[in-house]
Amino acid sequence: MQAKEIIAKKREGQENSPEELTFLLNGFLKGEIKEYQLSAWLMAVFFRGMTDRELSVWTELMWKSGETIERTGIYARNNSSYWIDKHSTGGVGDKTSLILVPLVKTVTEKWVKDIRVGIPMISGRGLGHTGGTLDKLESVSGFVPQISAQKAKELMNTQGFFMAGQTESIAPADRLIYSLRDVTGTIESIPLIISSIMSKKLAENLNGILFDIKTGLGAFMPSQDQAKILAKGLVSVARHQGLDAVGLITRMDEPLGWKTGNFLEVEECADFLNGAPREKYLDELVLESAAWMIFMASQKSISVDSAKNMCHEVIQKKLAFPLFQQLFESQGGNFDNFKRSRDSFRETYFSYDYVANESGHVSSIHAREIGVLLVELGGGRMVKESGIDNKVGFEFLKKSGDLVEAGQTIVRVYHRSPQEVQIIQKVLQRAIQVETKKSEFTKESSIVREVIA
Amino acid sequence: MQAKEIIAKKREGQENSPEELTFLLNGFLKGEIKEYQLSAWLMAVFFRGMTDRELSVWTELMWKSGETIERTGIYARNNSSYWIDKHSTGGVGDKTSLILVPLVKTVTEKWVKDIRVGIPMISGRGLGHTGGTLDKLESVSGFVPQISAQKAKELMNTQGFFMAGQTESIAPADRLIYSLRDVTGTIESIPLIISSIMSKKLAENLNGILFDIKTGLGAFMPSQDQAKILAKGLVSVARHQGLDAVGLITRMDEPLGWKTGNFLEVEECADFLNGAPREKYLDELVLESAAWMIFMASQKSISVDSAKNMCHEVIQKKLAFPLFQQLFESQGGNFDNFKRSRDSFRETYFSYDYVANESGHVSSIHAREIGVLLVELGGGRMVKESGIDNKVGFEFLKKSGDLVEAGQTIVRVYHRSPQEVQIIQKVLQRAIQVETKKSEFTKESSIVREVIA
Repeated sequence: MQAKEIIAKKREGQENSPEELTFLLNGFLKGEIKEYQLSAWLMAVFFRGMTDRELSVWTELMWKSGETIERTGIYARNNSSYWIDKHSTGGVGDKTSLILVPLVKTVTEKWVKDIRVGIPMISGRGLGHTGGTLDKLESVSGFVPQISAQKAKELMNTQGFFMAGQTESIAPADRLIYSLRDVTGTIESIPLIISSIMSKKLAENLNGILFDIKTGLGAFMPSQDQAKILAKGLVSVARHQGLDAVGLITRMDEPLGWKTGNFLEVEECADFLNGAPREKYLDELVLESAAWMIFMASQKSISVDSAKNMCHEVIQKKLAFPLFQQLFESQGGNFDNFKRSRDSFRETYFSYDYVANESGHVSSIHAREIGVLLVELGGGRMVKESGIDNKVGFEFLKKSGDLVEAGQTIVRVYHRSPQEVQIIQKVLQRAIQVETKKSEFTKESSIVREVIA
Repeated sequence: MQAKEIIAKKREGQENSPEELTFLLNGFLKGEIKEYQLSAWLMAVFFRGMTDRELSVWTELMWKSGETIERTGIYARNNSSYWIDKHSTGGVGDKTSLILVPLVKTVTEKWVKDIRVGIPMISGRGLGHTGGTLDKLESVSGFVPQISAQKAKELMNTQGFFMAGQTESIAPADRLIYSLRDVTGTIESIPLIISSIMSKKLAENLNGILFDIKTGLGAFMPSQDQAKILAKGLVSVARHQGLDAVGLITRMDEPLGWKTGNFLEVEECADFLNGAPREKYLDELVLESAAWMIFMASQKSISVDSAKNMCHEVIQKKLAFPLFQQLFESQGGNFDNFKRSRDSFRETYFSYDYVANESGHVSSIHAREIGVLLVELGGGRMVKESGIDNKVGFEFLKKSGDLVEAGQTIVRVYHRSPQEVQIIQKVLQRAIQVETKKSEFTKESSIVREVIA
């Protein structure tokens, strides 16, 4: 078998056999197949796609290049335990994971008696205009997102959940290949995206998974057609590996929730779980996601609608907040420090209020523009190596569909230098639209466009 | 500018600007752009092609990565000198270059009085089922195919021709990129083929060029549609660089001429120029090629038909044979030794006569099968590093269209071990077809299918 022949087959639109894919991946890991050969193959995959068999084999090879989190004790793989996770393709202001973990755990502890539900969650960092769960978690000082497979197993056995970053031992082939794709223009290939996501998720030893595939202006994949192909592919590969899987296709046109910026988003999550007023779309997405996770974890004994009611009750009664705090503290986070910072940081950062010139409805807030501005102000990163300032961010007092009077603040920006005001103004003028003819504006009713169940 | 963006543009079917291509090629030569990035770009080019501007810029960048042969003295670039070469895409038994150089030089010396014609010819080695001019030349002992640009200039000034291999200083970017293409499944891309060919030809400082694009069973590019696209592309890029250019699309279904194998082919060339009977298609291809070269070199003052007549006269009178001998001797070849070997080698090699089982017409001799068998018997190479035995080869006593009686020899094979007879028989049975219903067979009348002039 020769690498060049495997590449040429893919280039000509023929299927690579499991043996060929194994030869390619293992050869690459051993250094026998060169990066320049793999990158040519990856580009051929971009153009030719992958068959279901190729995708399944390739995903499994990447997953099995590393460790799988062990399930022991009360979480040993049997009918009375169920591990579930959620994966989102990323957006602006999307902090749902931080809410879902304590919420789903609390609901299932309370209402799913005969099945022990675990939520192992491996997340990523923000890059470009989209934020990342790990950066949000780290805005609570002391929190350690990098944990070993051993530590992950311990956290699962003691509390039934963790939130962590991909370690060296999880799907190392995916890390190497992702780095190569990043510099060779081969990121935007649906089968390569699917295999990258799933190789890490399979290492979590799950029974079920929920996918949140974003579409719209602020999404990695703006076209809804492409989003649907991706969602169906993810669901299909997950099921092929024996998992329950549900895919949500959701709108990511404007930043999700009231706040965007790492520290501010943790604030919003804490308030959400403490019964404070909730932004409409964040609320909808959290409840929809949690309900599907609970539906799967209960082995369909709890309906999606019932699950939503349970979540609602848990939030109203603030029952999930203790686990939210525990989530940080179990991995070194200083939650008291976080609470103190809430009061103090607004004194030390500059704030700028962007106000409406005219009265009307806020008709759109461009998610990508806000995400990019966050990066420019130091609150996100364009390249993996950059550090970030987690306090920089946006507090929206109005979201699209809301009435605004001339002179009212639409968004408050926390930033680091008075010299940034000009760029903030310029970007926000472009990013935020106010529609003065009130009658013409109708807000889209739902953030969830489609459910693949 | 970033390599990944240049790659992504090409991947999306957008045109790369001259600045981007320059950044890519020069960055690659400096090691700043990595092989894995270039190979991904090359694969994207395979799928997306190149625009005329991209192809022209890329070709020129590759050419200018190295030296150009200097034209001085009687060959200084002006209206009274003209350099011309021929390039063929390669076939089985194709020895036309060795005949064309002395033939065209002789005819133009004799009939083109006011223009001094030079023929600098940089050729390649055989690979896979196709033979290479350098290997044929080297079957005359002592011949040195690798010469410096300085030596090339000297040979041009003293005799007006040379035949040599690509040196380190000629289009080094092409050598590096060709090696990369070879291991990344990106050989079979028409714009990449064109830029590779032309970057070397432009280094010859030519005024005109003839392309012989093979099509059919033994060709690198079997489909005539593809061959035509390649031919038109080559002619177009050459003309864009200010050269006269003509393309011939020719059949390569059966081995060309009576003989296949390096030493045997030099024999056939010597005999051809010495007035011996000439195989029909080899004769046609040599005369057609020479005539177009003479037509261009005479700046159209000699018509193609007149040029054919001149060639015919030169061959009949054996006037080009001295230059054929000089071709070898000027680069160290021992021609006396060659003549002695002609008589002696048939005594030391095994020979096997493949005879017809039934009477009829030879209807086809599969060029690729013959080329591959030559490699298997040691007379060609599958990988660049292999050595070859230049005496191994085939003497066809019958070609397709010829009548053969049961028991008559169709082809005599010179080989090195009696154990090879079985494989020779097996392959020749597959490769050679004899049609017993005589009335149904009509031989194609011409080897030249199309002229792009």
